[in-house]
Amino acid sequence: MTQHAQQRDRFARTIQTALSDFLTAENLSGPGSPPDTLVSAMRHGCLNGGKRLRPLLVMQTAEIFGLEEARTLNAALSVEIVHCYSLIHDDLPAMDDDALRRGLPTVHTKFDEATAILAGDALLAHAFGLLGNPDCHPKAEIRTALVLELSFGAGAGGMAGGQSRDLEGETTGFSVREISEMQAMKTGALIRAAVRMGAILGGAGPDQLKALTTYGEAAGLAFQLADDILDLTASTKQMGKATRKDATRSKPTLVSRIGLEAAERHLGDTIHHAVSALAMFGPEADGLRATARYFAERES
Amino acid sequence: MTQHAQQRDRFARTIQTALSDFLTAENLSGPGSPPDTLVSAMRHGCLNGGKRLRPLLVMQTAEIFGLEEARTLNAALSVEIVHCYSLIHDDLPAMDDDALRRGLPTVHTKFDEATAILAGDALLAHAFGLLGNPDCHPKAEIRTALVLELSFGAGAGGMAGGQSRDLEGETTGFSVREISEMQAMKTGALIRAAVRMGAILGGAGPDQLKALTTYGEAAGLAFQLADDILDLTASTKQMGKATRKDATRSKPTLVSRIGLEAAERHLGDTIHHAVSALAMFGPEADGLRATARYFAERES
Repeated sequence: MTQHAQQRDRFARTIQTALSDFLTAENLSGPGSPPDTLVSAMRHGCLNGGKRLRPLLVMQTAEIFGLEEARTLNAALSVEIVHCYSLIHDDLPAMDDDALRRGLPTVHTKFDEATAILAGDALLAHAFGLLGNPDCHPKAEIRTALVLELSFGAGAGGMAGGQSRDLEGETTGFSVREISEMQAMKTGALIRAAVRMGAILGGAGPDQLKALTTYGEAAGLAFQLADDILDLTASTKQMGKATRKDATRSKPTLVSRIGLEAAERHLGDTIHHAVSALAMFGPEADGLRATARYFAERES
Repeated sequence: MTQHAQQRDRFARTIQTALSDFLTAENLSGPGSPPDTLVSAMRHGCLNGGKRLRPLLVMQTAEIFGLEEARTLNAALSVEIVHCYSLIHDDLPAMDDDALRRGLPTVHTKFDEATAILAGDALLAHAFGLLGNPDCHPKAEIRTALVLELSFGAGAGGMAGGQSRDLEGETTGFSVREISEMQAMKTGALIRAAVRMGAILGGAGPDQLKALTTYGEAAGLAFQLADDILDLTASTKQMGKATRKDATRSKPTLVSRIGLEAAERHLGDTIHHAVSALAMFGPEADGLRATARYFAERES
């Protein structure tokens, strides 16, 4: 196991534990106590063994600026929680209608649709609470910058807008350019936000933020390309969900348009682009470099 | 028309205009451009002529501390946007299944379910963006306090948790106490948050915040009681939606449990309690006093 794979696995466990510790009735209490069912649904949607790559990107980017891992945890959790809420909502019958995710029943299958909608809503609200909390960063200016980043990454010009475009594309058909734009929002926006939030936490200067944004955008594209390639090539067992579904539903992906070989070449170029964007940084950015390369190598 | 009714009407128009100005493709842009359909759905869900009472509470509370109306606008909008997102999601077939709201088709009826889910999600994300923005308040500490307040008001121990409890209550039956607790979360939490956000904007001290929290909690209860009483007594025309639905669905309300007369007496007591909580404030709190009284008098 490479050093990077070890870091990835260890950090995924850290995030799993931190999510489990955070998502309790006590921490989620407001004017009232959260109902047990809702808390269970929120936990089910978040604690199902994801790869935790978005929080990894927050942490590895902040690492460039010498931040200790513990000081990146609230921001890292907030991004992962937004990712998990989006999966819960995407799986709903009115959206992608998935009964299974990572080999387990989706939230609306295990609970019901209303609970899945509300669990997602509550997760999104609490993600911002994690950023507002002084534990996130001692400087309030940093915390509000993180709030803005997550808001626009998750919003109508980011992840939610991308999912909306994706659903439109199923019926209207998309050009290669439209697919790229949709994916840059649907998957790319939150990955970009994760990297930028790490940079904001670390106090990156304008040039550094620009370079890291380029990295984040390329990493997001690489991640989606790899996902689409895997969807075409991997078995159901490896993915833990029904594969080739994109193709059978004629969901627009770059791979289905430009072909497997061109997509793999494009993936290689994109990872090269991501890594090149980090040229101004030394070995402190090796984590991000390894993560970009991992996107092309992963098998699930 | 009383002075308060004039202020209410004028401010409702201010909020309507501000929402319309804010909810544009340009303002909602992030890494990408929001799709037209999504922006239209977000606008439809927010610009359908609500009474804008929650932003009124933000503004009137901040008014106590001498804040000009314009300086309360981002916070006021964020609360109203969270309220509007919750209506969009509550109306979904998996939740209350309403085709009509304020005499107009609900978002999932006019668009589709997926778009309604995503419009709600995006609105919630952008509500926090309004608070993170320096336009909201020059001090970042104030902005992060507002983020926390809205997060917990909207989250699992607040509004989303209350809606979750309400859905449980439809099947399991609730005691009078359980109904009160559910409503304190479902409707009360956001009204409480609106008042507290006004207090935070105004720089309220601990005693002032405590008194205003008491006011906010009582106002929330009064609002819900009045709503339940209206649901039983008003005609469909006045409410702009199907009434007596709570009763036909055996949705638990205090009115159905304790009877109309006791509920009206309870409403009177609650408004008295809300107004009494403002005893430490002078005429600068007359706006809040009038709004509490209005809750008992409104006819729609």
